Amino acid sequence: MKAGVFDSGVGGLTVLKSLLENQTFEEIIYYGDTARVPYGTKDKNTIIRYSLEALEYFENYDIDILIVACNSASAHALNALKDVASIPVIGVIDSGILAVQSKIQDKNSNILVIGTTATIGSNLYEIGLKDEEFTNITSIATPLFVPLVEEGILDGDILDATLEYYFKDLSKIDTVILGCTHFPLLEKKISSYLNDAITIHSGDSIVQFLENEYNCTNKYETTSIKFFASSNPDGLKQTAKNWLGKLL
Amino acid sequence: MKAGVFDSGVGGLTVLKSLLENQTFEEIIYYGDTARVPYGTKDKNTIIRYSLEALEYFENYDIDILIVACNSASAHALNALKDVASIPVIGVIDSGILAVQSKIQDKNSNILVIGTTATIGSNLYEIGLKDEEFTNITSIATPLFVPLVEEGILDGDILDATLEYYFKDLSKIDTVILGCTHFPLLEKKISSYLNDAITIHSGDSIVQFLENEYNCTNKYETTSIKFFASSNPDGLKQTAKNWLGKLL
Repeated sequence: MKAGVFDSGVGGLTVLKSLLENQTFEEIIYYGDTARVPYGTKDKNTIIRYSLEALEYFENYDIDILIVACNSASAHALNALKDVASIPVIGVIDSGILAVQSKIQDKNSNILVIGTTATIGSNLYEIGLKDEEFTNITSIATPLFVPLVEEGILDGDILDATLEYYFKDLSKIDTVILGCTHFPLLEKKISSYLNDAITIHSGDSIVQFLENEYNCTNKYETTSIKFFASSNPDGLKQTAKNWLGKLL
Repeated sequence: MKAGVFDSGVGGLTVLKSLLENQTFEEIIYYGDTARVPYGTKDKNTIIRYSLEALEYFENYDIDILIVACNSASAHALNALKDVASIPVIGVIDSGILAVQSKIQDKNSNILVIGTTATIGSNLYEIGLKDEEFTNITSIATPLFVPLVEEGILDGDILDATLEYYFKDLSKIDTVILGCTHFPLLEKKISSYLNDAITIHSGDSIVQFLENEYNCTNKYETTSIKFFASSNPDGLKQTAKNWLGKLL
């Protein structure tokens, strides 16, 4: 089975990592729209336009399923993509909500959703969680985590000050949804600041979602991967090497 | 006289501010490529492509001169723009170097250049300053200042930690070139951290450059301004109101 993984840039590599660890696909085409990253600060129409262009890009590669790894694109463009695609298109928000359901039994658990301004602005995590009868949900846009990860700042004073800036006024959090594919690189730091809150990670969620909803239970011994980017593909490949190491 | 001001996003508003304070033009068309901002993390070919598209955009507005307010575009796309434009095109790097010449007499002055990764990677400030026989130049890419300004974080612990992160190992700096149009919003903080170093500001430099090189010495009582953006023009207009206030 051949999957396309679409992200606004390098963030979706954290989703790719989970797919590789789980050996879900035989072939993966990864496309990062690095020429126009980030999506999370842009408006809905722009995100839809760029996502539809990405779909056209994948038409050259005969994929069986498209995974929208970017939370901002999942939040704003998933319906537009589904309307025109001839293959299944799945996003990371539905899968994130499914992951909360399977991990968290207590409907009164204090859940924090963090993401880009676009993702949090869509309110889709909160709506989905309330549909599943979770009652205590707090959503915060934490856009600065994105450039910190892009710059490789994964610890130190700037990160500590940023954690404090976003989270200092929160009361107890039990579970935090990492609603942006950049955030798993800060997973330990975020969880630790929030008194070891349970983390929900888009990549792990997608793997589970593919198994439950699309019966993707085969394990492929090797996965062939091709990387494409709208700007600086060598930079994307280098980041993939740094983040994914031996999985490639 | 009617000018076009082109920036990757809102940063060029700091250049617009200087033009308005100095009453340099009768009409200004401001275009921010907010759908694809930032340019400073992207590669040369992408920056050239987007800048040429912006030039096409201005063709509808019959401008007399195009000011490239974005340092990253000035660094990588100015020659490409000049090659195809039928009007003068000026960038903020040549003007910044002229401003250093007029402000700093001592050729051994310790000059710090800060900018995006793209601008610093071009090395154009350093080359230009060495041509003018300045000898002690340090260049540092400080990309995190851009999202801080975009998020309105102009003081506090995150900014202090970021100043420390970039500047802690520097020895004495006499003059700092704010080589990104976002940085004037952090001017006092940056200057203060660097023991009150003199700052060189792209907007002030452009005004001086227009007077010296293009004889733009008229003072217009009012300036009519039109704002355009490739995404979320209302957001751009709101930022303009916040930053420029009564000048609009």
